Amino acid sequence: MSEDKNISPDWIAVDWGTTNLRAWAVSKSGRALDMACSSDGMGGLERDQFETVLRKSIACWNLGGSTTVVACGMVGSRQGWIEAPYTKAPCKPLPDGLIKAPVNGDDLSVYIVPGIRQDNPSDVMRGEETQIAGFIATNPDWDGVICLPGSHTKWVHISAGEVVSFQTFMTGEMFDTLSQNTVLRHSIANEGWDDDAFIDAVSDSMSKPERIAGRLFSLRADGLLAGQSAQVARARLSGLLVGAELAAARPYWLGQQIAILGDEKLAKIYSAALLEQGVSAMRTDADHMTVAGLNAAYQSLKETA
Amino acid sequence: MSEDKNISPDWIAVDWGTTNLRAWAVSKSGRALDMACSSDGMGGLERDQFETVLRKSIACWNLGGSTTVVACGMVGSRQGWIEAPYTKAPCKPLPDGLIKAPVNGDDLSVYIVPGIRQDNPSDVMRGEETQIAGFIATNPDWDGVICLPGSHTKWVHISAGEVVSFQTFMTGEMFDTLSQNTVLRHSIANEGWDDDAFIDAVSDSMSKPERIAGRLFSLRADGLLAGQSAQVARARLSGLLVGAELAAARPYWLGQQIAILGDEKLAKIYSAALLEQGVSAMRTDADHMTVAGLNAAYQSLKETA
Repeated sequence: MSEDKNISPDWIAVDWGTTNLRAWAVSKSGRALDMACSSDGMGGLERDQFETVLRKSIACWNLGGSTTVVACGMVGSRQGWIEAPYTKAPCKPLPDGLIKAPVNGDDLSVYIVPGIRQDNPSDVMRGEETQIAGFIATNPDWDGVICLPGSHTKWVHISAGEVVSFQTFMTGEMFDTLSQNTVLRHSIANEGWDDDAFIDAVSDSMSKPERIAGRLFSLRADGLLAGQSAQVARARLSGLLVGAELAAARPYWLGQQIAILGDEKLAKIYSAALLEQGVSAMRTDADHMTVAGLNAAYQSLKETA
Repeated sequence: MSEDKNISPDWIAVDWGTTNLRAWAVSKSGRALDMACSSDGMGGLERDQFETVLRKSIACWNLGGSTTVVACGMVGSRQGWIEAPYTKAPCKPLPDGLIKAPVNGDDLSVYIVPGIRQDNPSDVMRGEETQIAGFIATNPDWDGVICLPGSHTKWVHISAGEVVSFQTFMTGEMFDTLSQNTVLRHSIANEGWDDDAFIDAVSDSMSKPERIAGRLFSLRADGLLAGQSAQVARARLSGLLVGAELAAARPYWLGQQIAILGDEKLAKIYSAALLEQGVSAMRTDADHMTVAGLNAAYQSLKETA
């Protein structure tokens, strides 16, 4: 793992979530030269283990005498390396003031990007603000709504370079727990898909969202009685949940310019569901936006230094 | 465990679900003399283990030379002791023809009650049909809707002693998996309750069911930002899910005579939610109905013998 790749980064970008860490060696121009991964997410670490994990993850690169690391994500939560308190929306996605993490030695300076909170209705984000900053840096003067699909999908209203308001939907985590931890696990495949079943379920769920609670068990019963395949059931469950989300998120996407920023598979699903509602969403590469956002944070750090 | 209690049943009633078994020693008059429990539910047993588990569970009673056992629940599923194929609704809750399970020796005769299926929309029940039969035996000529709250809550339309139609809601299992297996576990207590928070959430969810998908993460965010207690969050989650169920089940309870048949805590919750909609539901004891239903099955067996 510590094989020398002969890569000499100018600085290091880190996206450190609950379940994993990804680090990029970044050039002076802001380009990712290499990526390193670790499954040592925030969720499994004690406070004094973060530095060791980071050092191990970036050991394969040639670091100079003093390297700056800029990190975003759950690493800045109360249970993380050091708490980077939420900034209150409306605000720029990267407000002034990164939080410096304690490090042994002066070869590394580690800074953490704060998350954003919204007080009414209550909501929080950590990590997404950095992707949003990357998107805004890449698309200046863009106003509209960014959808960031994932375990906790976020819909974020952007205007004049600020996060105006946002809402989180647990759609991804609901899909995972319903398909793995309930009776539906007997009827739902781990892989496979059916585009028509997905779109039908989205439409069904959007047009009669009050029936969502009654639709779920039918995934089981249709498997038992009507021979529904486990792949169709998988796409239907996803469609029911995404449809319920779109019904609730309507104020965010109706008549708005939309960008989807996330994992390619998920982006494709959301894009198809929105297209069915007559909304053409722009799709962007999430990793690219993460590095661009961390780069914006790094540049702001140099300006204030 | 096999201590002799000097109890001599006329026959034995068994409710054998996925996660546990309950057996009652029943008198000639249909009265439960004693109950025995086991955690050997259908879910953990191979086909050839059912007889051993049953014999162990009832060993504490004095059985005569030949004893009849009548069982309901998942013991009759395809993965159970022997499959008791579903009867198609509309039908009596206890159609003719119990299924005889294979037993070594002639000291026990074991009969299993079939479940009920509905083809459009697809739905199934196993165990509830017996409770319904008990309810009808206890309340002859009753027409209306029976709500059986649980992991998989059922709403069952009864007319002229028949199951006309029914619908299953995964509300209980959703509550369990959301509160235990998602990020909400950090914000939701295992115990505790708040009546007002529950009723508010039911009303919120019923009046705007299309927003349910957006309400869930607010349970987490209100805990982080607004100091919401984990007991309030527990009651709110329950209220959101029960409210979504009531919104979807409206055709079942609106303008109908309602009986709630289930666990006391759950019955109380559903009763409070329905009362808020102006519906007074009758509450009945679930165990009593199970034994009464198995007794009706046993009596039909004697008539056809």
